[in-house]
Amino acid sequence: MKTTLVLLSLLLAWPAAAEWFTEADLDTARELREAALQRDGGFEIVADLTTRIGPRMAGTEADAKAVAWAVETLTDIGFDRVWKEPVTFPTWERGFERVGVTAPVEQRFEALAIGYSPPTPEGGIEAEVVQFADLASLEAASPDEVADRIVFISNRMERARDGSGYGPAVQARSRGAIVAAEMGAVGVIIRSIGTSTNRFAHTGGMRFDVGQRRLPAAAISNPDADQLERLLELGEPVRLHMEIAAQKTEAYTSHNVIAEITGAKYPEKIVALGAHLDSWDVGTGALDDGAGIAIITEAARLILERDERPDRSIHVIYFAAEEVGLWGGRHWAEKHRDNFGNYQLGAESDFGAGQIYEIGARVSDEAWPVIEAIQAELAPLGIELGGRQAFGGPDFIPSLPYGLAVVDLRQDGTNYFDYHHTENDTLDKIDPEDLAQNAAAYAVLAWLAAQSSIDFGSGPGLIDNGQ
Amino acid sequence: MKTTLVLLSLLLAWPAAAEWFTEADLDTARELREAALQRDGGFEIVADLTTRIGPRMAGTEADAKAVAWAVETLTDIGFDRVWKEPVTFPTWERGFERVGVTAPVEQRFEALAIGYSPPTPEGGIEAEVVQFADLASLEAASPDEVADRIVFISNRMERARDGSGYGPAVQARSRGAIVAAEMGAVGVIIRSIGTSTNRFAHTGGMRFDVGQRRLPAAAISNPDADQLERLLELGEPVRLHMEIAAQKTEAYTSHNVIAEITGAKYPEKIVALGAHLDSWDVGTGALDDGAGIAIITEAARLILERDERPDRSIHVIYFAAEEVGLWGGRHWAEKHRDNFGNYQLGAESDFGAGQIYEIGARVSDEAWPVIEAIQAELAPLGIELGGRQAFGGPDFIPSLPYGLAVVDLRQDGTNYFDYHHTENDTLDKIDPEDLAQNAAAYAVLAWLAAQSSIDFGSGPGLIDNGQ
Repeated sequence: MKTTLVLLSLLLAWPAAAEWFTEADLDTARELREAALQRDGGFEIVADLTTRIGPRMAGTEADAKAVAWAVETLTDIGFDRVWKEPVTFPTWERGFERVGVTAPVEQRFEALAIGYSPPTPEGGIEAEVVQFADLASLEAASPDEVADRIVFISNRMERARDGSGYGPAVQARSRGAIVAAEMGAVGVIIRSIGTSTNRFAHTGGMRFDVGQRRLPAAAISNPDADQLERLLELGEPVRLHMEIAAQKTEAYTSHNVIAEITGAKYPEKIVALGAHLDSWDVGTGALDDGAGIAIITEAARLILERDERPDRSIHVIYFAAEEVGLWGGRHWAEKHRDNFGNYQLGAESDFGAGQIYEIGARVSDEAWPVIEAIQAELAPLGIELGGRQAFGGPDFIPSLPYGLAVVDLRQDGTNYFDYHHTENDTLDKIDPEDLAQNAAAYAVLAWLAAQSSIDFGSGPGLIDNGQ
Repeated sequence: MKTTLVLLSLLLAWPAAAEWFTEADLDTARELREAALQRDGGFEIVADLTTRIGPRMAGTEADAKAVAWAVETLTDIGFDRVWKEPVTFPTWERGFERVGVTAPVEQRFEALAIGYSPPTPEGGIEAEVVQFADLASLEAASPDEVADRIVFISNRMERARDGSGYGPAVQARSRGAIVAAEMGAVGVIIRSIGTSTNRFAHTGGMRFDVGQRRLPAAAISNPDADQLERLLELGEPVRLHMEIAAQKTEAYTSHNVIAEITGAKYPEKIVALGAHLDSWDVGTGALDDGAGIAIITEAARLILERDERPDRSIHVIYFAAEEVGLWGGRHWAEKHRDNFGNYQLGAESDFGAGQIYEIGARVSDEAWPVIEAIQAELAPLGIELGGRQAFGGPDFIPSLPYGLAVVDLRQDGTNYFDYHHTENDTLDKIDPEDLAQNAAAYAVLAWLAAQSSIDFGSGPGLIDNGQ
């Protein structure tokens, strides 16, 4: 009995693709992979989106144009069904921002207001600057160091392939204006949460809770943050002026746009690929997240172009209003949570256009060997097997508590934060070959997930196994 | 007789340093070279200038502050004499610029008005765009293609070590707004004359002749120029809006600042090192030309720190108002032209902080072997011998017709035009080691030129020998 169990478990642990997929399905996966690498289909899509629409901040006129573009593009491609699901959220509009030192010398800084920053009074505010190395140092300060001053949080984001430098640094942006408000400061300036030494400020959102007091807050570019540090090192008081004309306007309703390849055998079962359609207002959102839109659309188009339909359905989801608070992802989670038992997986592409180097997945123990078998088909693309902790991409985070199985196709993000959330996020930053590698990987994943002989384990029972 | 001449010419052609310099002078040159490489003296100077003053556009308040900084810095260093020579020029002030497409989609471009652009009417102008590949194509067009339109000149600057891509491309900026005015256009937009794919527009001057009609003109960043080309390729009419609030104000008087190491033997004879103190308004002018200021100052300081004074005097000249029309250089040429017989050479550092790879010189035939002997002392820095065509740097151009001998220490400019004249010209773009190599070369050049047993041939008789 024991021996049988050991043998059985060895057999289960062995990623024998033939156990999970037919030879025909594996052949199709390989053909999809090679077809993706032979063309620039994804690049055409992101070029079209970023040229015809350009920046498409959630809640602006360009948001509606982008949604119309999405419906038209997905319909033209020939999906079996294309529809919209409304998403309502509070908008925020930049207006303008001006930040500069007034003493010991007058100099203008390159700055961007942080999303959901309140405006300053007209004409702006002016105060002495007090520097903190990070949010924790600010929290540890005494209020009289901070009162009536402009707080400068100067933590520097570290470059890393997996983007792991972002999380620790971004606290300054997410919470700095709330913490500083409690301590009696009048404004907040942060070093940009980005790795570029080019003179671009890096925008992004701050935490937004109705009724919570926040201060006007802006990020200055890394060279300007260096300059401010040098000025502070001169030892004389440094005074800053900041004016932010940001407007908070009414609630706005945009849409998640969903396109379906209807499954031939189990149309109610769904492989969900995601990306977000909105962008920040300052660049054209080529890397964030035009690239993701292109990758998942091109992957699905490759499958659509074949004679056979997959067993399960494949959904391509363009999420709304990700940048300003995951509104599309939150709405999608609430709307579909009761049906997650039918969702094979969620996987969002939202980390630029760098090559994928690793697959990770949060699936049931029974389904993990299928992930291993899929990885074997991704290996020719240079994709290794990662672990069993995965989050599926930002817009699937709200679905995790409800047990959605998710897969991460992890992209090389070494240079991503040189461009992310800046004016410099434009089409020329995308390498079409890298984009094709991404589309190839998503096509293989979507196809094999749709053909898998077993389900990935979504549903209330799926919890993170902590591996 | 013939044999003697051949032997004599062979002897003259041989760069026998001992013929031109004493062993002690050569030892000093070598010590200067090594001392420069052992420290970051130049970097400290450019850090101080760009931090304490920052941008220092000619004719602004910061111009006066920079002149005061210069006098103080040069005096503190301990030059034998420091003085100012007034330079008067017409100022130009940016105000603001806004450029964007209005059809077939609304998108804002990153733009900078070109220096001496006239303002648009308040509220700006709006017109259909017509694209030309370069200035020659515009000149060859028929006026009815151009009338009432905004002309877009899209030539692209080529990257090159010697910066040779700049000259052909910059015609669009220098003359586009004049040519287009004659043809009935209403405004001019050019692709930035720079090599960066970062989203910075590249400013710079246009030709300025009183009474000549010019159009409002702005440069858009390379990614924006790409975007405009893609929009034009869609085939629908593309309309642009441009608003420029540039102000032309009154004449302003700034100063060339000159510091002297007084020669011990021939104080009236002068080795003139130059750089310009003014910068464009958008960056902090670290590469252009804070680096040059640092290089020549550090070179002279190294010489000052020695016990002995050089035979000839050495002048460190901070030229005024270079960017807006070589005003400091023009003034200096006119003021000193009658004394050029006493000037050993002029050499300006105004090409960023890249390493020097070559020396060239416009000197008399008799002096050329001295240049070869100097090159031998520069060779350990990786500096090769160039030819006999040289221009001495922008601020010495106005002196060339009067016969000033000039030396070029040619810097690697491969990346210079990624930053030049943009918001991105900031201190972090300078490599302190490269800067030290430059200071080492200028110190060797200045010292040996001051000690040379023969004059370099400046004066009305020196003409370009065309080699």
